[in-house]
Amino acid sequence: MGHTFPGAAAPFGMVQLSPETNQQEMFVDGQYNRDTYKYCSGYQYSDNTIFGFSHTHFSGTGHSDLGDFLIMPTTGVLNLEPGVADETASGYHSTFSHKNEYAEPGYYSVLLNESKIKAELTASERVGFHSYTFSKSDTAHIILDLMSNIYNYDDKNVWTFVRVENDSLVTGYRQTSGWARTRTVYFAMQFSKAFSKYGHKKYDKVDYNGFYRRFNETENFPEMAGKNIRAYFDFDVEENEKVKIKFALSSVSTEGALKNLDAEIPHWDFNKVKKQTQEKWNRELSKIEIVSQSPEDKVIFYTALYHTMLSPIIYEDVDGNYRGLDQNIHQSDGFINYTIFSLWDTFRALHPLFNLIQPGRNVDMIKSMLAHHDQSVHNMLPIWSHYSNENWCMIGYHSVSVIADAIAKGNTNFDINHALDACKNTSTNIYFDGLDYYMCIDFIPEDVSSNSVSKTLEFSYDDWCISRIANGAKKYDVLTEYEKRSQNFVNLFNESSGFMQPKLSTGSWKPNFDPLNTHGQGFIEGNAWTYSLFVPHEIDKMIEMMGGKNQFSERLDSLFTMQLDDKYIAHNEDITRDGIIGNYVHGNEPGHHIPYLYNWTGHDWKTQERVRMIMETMYGNKADGLCGNDDAGQMSAWYVFSALGFYPVCPGSGKYAIGSPLVKNATVNLENGKSFQIKTKNQSQENVYISKIILNGKELKRNYILHSEIVRGGEIIFNMTNKPI
Amino acid sequence: MGHTFPGAAAPFGMVQLSPETNQQEMFVDGQYNRDTYKYCSGYQYSDNTIFGFSHTHFSGTGHSDLGDFLIMPTTGVLNLEPGVADETASGYHSTFSHKNEYAEPGYYSVLLNESKIKAELTASERVGFHSYTFSKSDTAHIILDLMSNIYNYDDKNVWTFVRVENDSLVTGYRQTSGWARTRTVYFAMQFSKAFSKYGHKKYDKVDYNGFYRRFNETENFPEMAGKNIRAYFDFDVEENEKVKIKFALSSVSTEGALKNLDAEIPHWDFNKVKKQTQEKWNRELSKIEIVSQSPEDKVIFYTALYHTMLSPIIYEDVDGNYRGLDQNIHQSDGFINYTIFSLWDTFRALHPLFNLIQPGRNVDMIKSMLAHHDQSVHNMLPIWSHYSNENWCMIGYHSVSVIADAIAKGNTNFDINHALDACKNTSTNIYFDGLDYYMCIDFIPEDVSSNSVSKTLEFSYDDWCISRIANGAKKYDVLTEYEKRSQNFVNLFNESSGFMQPKLSTGSWKPNFDPLNTHGQGFIEGNAWTYSLFVPHEIDKMIEMMGGKNQFSERLDSLFTMQLDDKYIAHNEDITRDGIIGNYVHGNEPGHHIPYLYNWTGHDWKTQERVRMIMETMYGNKADGLCGNDDAGQMSAWYVFSALGFYPVCPGSGKYAIGSPLVKNATVNLENGKSFQIKTKNQSQENVYISKIILNGKELKRNYILHSEIVRGGEIIFNMTNKPI
Repeated sequence: MGHTFPGAAAPFGMVQLSPETNQQEMFVDGQYNRDTYKYCSGYQYSDNTIFGFSHTHFSGTGHSDLGDFLIMPTTGVLNLEPGVADETASGYHSTFSHKNEYAEPGYYSVLLNESKIKAELTASERVGFHSYTFSKSDTAHIILDLMSNIYNYDDKNVWTFVRVENDSLVTGYRQTSGWARTRTVYFAMQFSKAFSKYGHKKYDKVDYNGFYRRFNETENFPEMAGKNIRAYFDFDVEENEKVKIKFALSSVSTEGALKNLDAEIPHWDFNKVKKQTQEKWNRELSKIEIVSQSPEDKVIFYTALYHTMLSPIIYEDVDGNYRGLDQNIHQSDGFINYTIFSLWDTFRALHPLFNLIQPGRNVDMIKSMLAHHDQSVHNMLPIWSHYSNENWCMIGYHSVSVIADAIAKGNTNFDINHALDACKNTSTNIYFDGLDYYMCIDFIPEDVSSNSVSKTLEFSYDDWCISRIANGAKKYDVLTEYEKRSQNFVNLFNESSGFMQPKLSTGSWKPNFDPLNTHGQGFIEGNAWTYSLFVPHEIDKMIEMMGGKNQFSERLDSLFTMQLDDKYIAHNEDITRDGIIGNYVHGNEPGHHIPYLYNWTGHDWKTQERVRMIMETMYGNKADGLCGNDDAGQMSAWYVFSALGFYPVCPGSGKYAIGSPLVKNATVNLENGKSFQIKTKNQSQENVYISKIILNGKELKRNYILHSEIVRGGEIIFNMTNKPI
Repeated sequence: MGHTFPGAAAPFGMVQLSPETNQQEMFVDGQYNRDTYKYCSGYQYSDNTIFGFSHTHFSGTGHSDLGDFLIMPTTGVLNLEPGVADETASGYHSTFSHKNEYAEPGYYSVLLNESKIKAELTASERVGFHSYTFSKSDTAHIILDLMSNIYNYDDKNVWTFVRVENDSLVTGYRQTSGWARTRTVYFAMQFSKAFSKYGHKKYDKVDYNGFYRRFNETENFPEMAGKNIRAYFDFDVEENEKVKIKFALSSVSTEGALKNLDAEIPHWDFNKVKKQTQEKWNRELSKIEIVSQSPEDKVIFYTALYHTMLSPIIYEDVDGNYRGLDQNIHQSDGFINYTIFSLWDTFRALHPLFNLIQPGRNVDMIKSMLAHHDQSVHNMLPIWSHYSNENWCMIGYHSVSVIADAIAKGNTNFDINHALDACKNTSTNIYFDGLDYYMCIDFIPEDVSSNSVSKTLEFSYDDWCISRIANGAKKYDVLTEYEKRSQNFVNLFNESSGFMQPKLSTGSWKPNFDPLNTHGQGFIEGNAWTYSLFVPHEIDKMIEMMGGKNQFSERLDSLFTMQLDDKYIAHNEDITRDGIIGNYVHGNEPGHHIPYLYNWTGHDWKTQERVRMIMETMYGNKADGLCGNDDAGQMSAWYVFSALGFYPVCPGSGKYAIGSPLVKNATVNLENGKSFQIKTKNQSQENVYISKIILNGKELKRNYILHSEIVRGGEIIFNMTNKPI
């Protein structure tokens, strides 16, 4: 359930060309019959069928969408039905075996068992490149299934428009209303070889085009339109002949897709594209060079690092045009526009990681967020946005954390005053998630807006971020205002229980409180045990409130060791046994900072022990190597930081809490041309504790390191030992 | 059934702001229940209800679409249901009385009985301007019904997107699949006064946006999207307070609509817009100044002239951007882009009229057709196109006639070689309407493509037009080729019956021929009696084939005087008793040239008598003043020419056949600054015959006049008499 995909993508590329391993009949007896959650990224390793290769996939999300433009090569009698996975001849899908499947960054290949077609995929940023090696056949087909979707509810397809421009070029678009409510993706599809014949079948219930009666629209008629269309293109192929397809995407127009196609891949050399994309991956992945304790650790590390660079994705044409949130076409001015902002997840460690190894891209992402704000009819920064849509998923307004963290780290090549205005607008929207109450009575009542404790805590932290941005902008009245708001977390702390708890609008605590239950207790995707610890900007104060350092350290011990009853895990897609240690949930985000909190109790060794244990048990070099959704790279970013020995507990602070490095040595190659060396002494699987830290030749007498110390370049040496210090 | 509308429009404007007089429940017992044909233009004089005012209407078509963005002002309890016409309180509609209704070019007003709201409408080219005068109310509403449509089949709405930008500005778009299969219209709606509250109701069967659950989307939430939406905006109003709305359209984007709004109406002065638009109308209508025999004739003449300037419509934003046939955004380069080309109708007299009084616009229309061709995946000129779509209505490829006529008349400010290429591409498309057979065996077999005789005859004429264009381009091989094709009409003439008749692909005549039946006999919207006479480019040859001048003259007499059995009229929407004289159908197009054919038989007086009789009986100054659909201005253009005394029997020839002027005198004010005077002597209702014609002081000894003679300026004097000459 990591929800990653094995297909081909360039770093941060708009195209994620990857197989769909199942596509059951959408409706059985009038009921929707597909496990949407399971197929968030289209691929499940346990499946043995492939239904085709589509061009857009989320990486690691817990909600689904995309899956655009499924292509499937077949031979024999044309069958436009996908069919049912269990029945081999029921449709165009094929069985496959993992032994015939191969994936590396920017490349994927598989042998389709029935047709013996070898499928190979690579991609540039905006263009997917398919190569299908056929056996000799005079009935070879390339199916373009425009009905196939991820999040495939009935009627997700809003409209489809296809033009067969000539005997080897097809353009068009598809408009969907799925998780993104109003979404259009344009394409240009270029074949390496002229098709001999083409056609389509329309599955619409109503067809208005009476005047098309004079044509046989279904065969060799070059304009297709409707809600539900499957097209095919026929070829004669020789033994081992490759039919190649370049498939470009655009959010703007088919004209834009054609520009992208011509600019990025103006030739038919599949291996050249593969090589170029892999060079890009090597450049990105070598931003951190490690020497690991074991070969397996190295694979896990670089797999994680790879997963941090699959989204946000570039979301503009080669000429800088993109579709904005207002559905108008905009031109990015001095930046590259990005989309897919899963911010409740990624503010924690992914964007901080970008500030370290992708500062240029992170600034562009911030500029993309500001453009989103400027185009937003709500005057808000993104909450969870993708493809010119705000889907409002999860809580908080964590764009502000991304901005604050960039400022704290000197990554400020954007208009800070503009950013501060956007943050203020976002945090004062009176119809968003109980903010009206929050601003009026300093907390959100549960009877007004559910998950009120989670919201109040996250707003408090976000408001602290805004105060930091105000500080950067030298707007001290705003700073004061938001520092005050940042203290709102105290209003939901119940001294008598020791937990953050939901209040009602009357001001009294909501009765029947269960601190282990994740449902109905004022929290979202977490319980009071976990969520009460989310005060990253006031950790000392939180610890004081909760009884002081010793009591807090014991509280963390309890969290990691208590037995959690099954009833608290059932009905939680995002919380499964795989990702749980006691009552700590590593498989989901709200607790990701918790293992590092021992650092504030004087028991740093417990953090060191715990993070090493989590790295060893919650990440693996297997199909189920993640203990929960990768969540657009957040789970992987946690690993990357932790493996290097430090973690951004409070994004916006410019500080990293020191954990325990898993690597032997590492070099962080910075964009400023400098490098930061991470070295260990006496590193081993048992030596998880740190006895001494030397930063640039001087002992570091604290348990955190500053971002500014890293980007100055230099080296840090961790002396490791097998005994807690 | 003229299918004109009484609302406000600027000459050739994109906005036609006009009332919808009925909008019954779309479905009764699961069955579609609206008379689409009857409501082609949204308005029927016999109705006494108004459902609102929408912004787009065809003028005079026999098929329907459009009806975008219906606005209705109401007071009292909000009711978003349109309701049923017969039940007063069943919905937001209102009764009205014709005595409280007033219409003139560019202005329409009506009193809504129930609410006592006075509605006034005017329009610039791209912006509709509403003014609603209320009685005092604290429950005044402006309803924006985005579900209301003309051609209102279930599911015509594909998608709707609305943003409430601030308390008085709303933007959005609606995408429909009606007659135009893939159509989007964008809008910007500016209120003169801030609304106090707004909201919408969504009528979709499925709503995907689970994540919107945290909002009450239905009230004061500024983004609305779905297939079926009705929005409302609430106001408090004082007695006699006017709430005004400027409503701009664009085919490009909401940004484009806003540009149009700001450029065309940057103020709130309703009367100023009305005045400016009426000045434009006066400028256009005074291109022909007449002195009529009776005041009523004058009204009829200028009503007809008005109807010739409602379409084609300007179809680009003020900055020249427009959505092309390929759905990409294009910039018009050196021309204004037009749409709504009902060419099977309008090639006959409307475009020839444009060559006379709107030569500049006609060239832009030709450039628009060429752009259509360049954007067409079929490489074809428009057949019947509107709003970035080809709807393939009716037959022939009469764009070529429009081009040939412009060339013949020296109106050649376009690339003739490009035009010739476009004509060749259009006329050689092998999947269009039997053209493959036509090119191979010189006629279209009825068993291959129905209406084969009509198609063969019209293709023959069109091919003659292409030969004329080739002549203009000095491409003499093409000229020869198409002159040969232009003779194909002979292949379907059956000497034994004297009629054009359908052949089968075997080469034999299709059996059971009925020359009076309009169905199944090889013709479309006409029978063999009428359609056999469609050889406008080879009239002498046709007459020879049909037995010579005398026999042909008698044949025409029979046509005009025979009794047509009711069975031949039933089931013909476009052919009704109102428009029939004997077996001649003036209410539909295929015969419009026929009254003038006597001129080729030596019996010119019969033409003179007949056209005067048609003008007197088939046109009137009443709600039912047209004898059939105005057909985008063709019916009216016939009248305008005929009233002046001449008619373009063969567009592309540069000649006008002389009929009998109805006017006393007329001045045609030409764009070249010259004017052409039409004068009569002894003109009266009885004196329908011409005894002598003096052109610029010299007797004209022929029964036609050349376009070149008119545009040189000067005067023609018709001496009238009551006796046939």
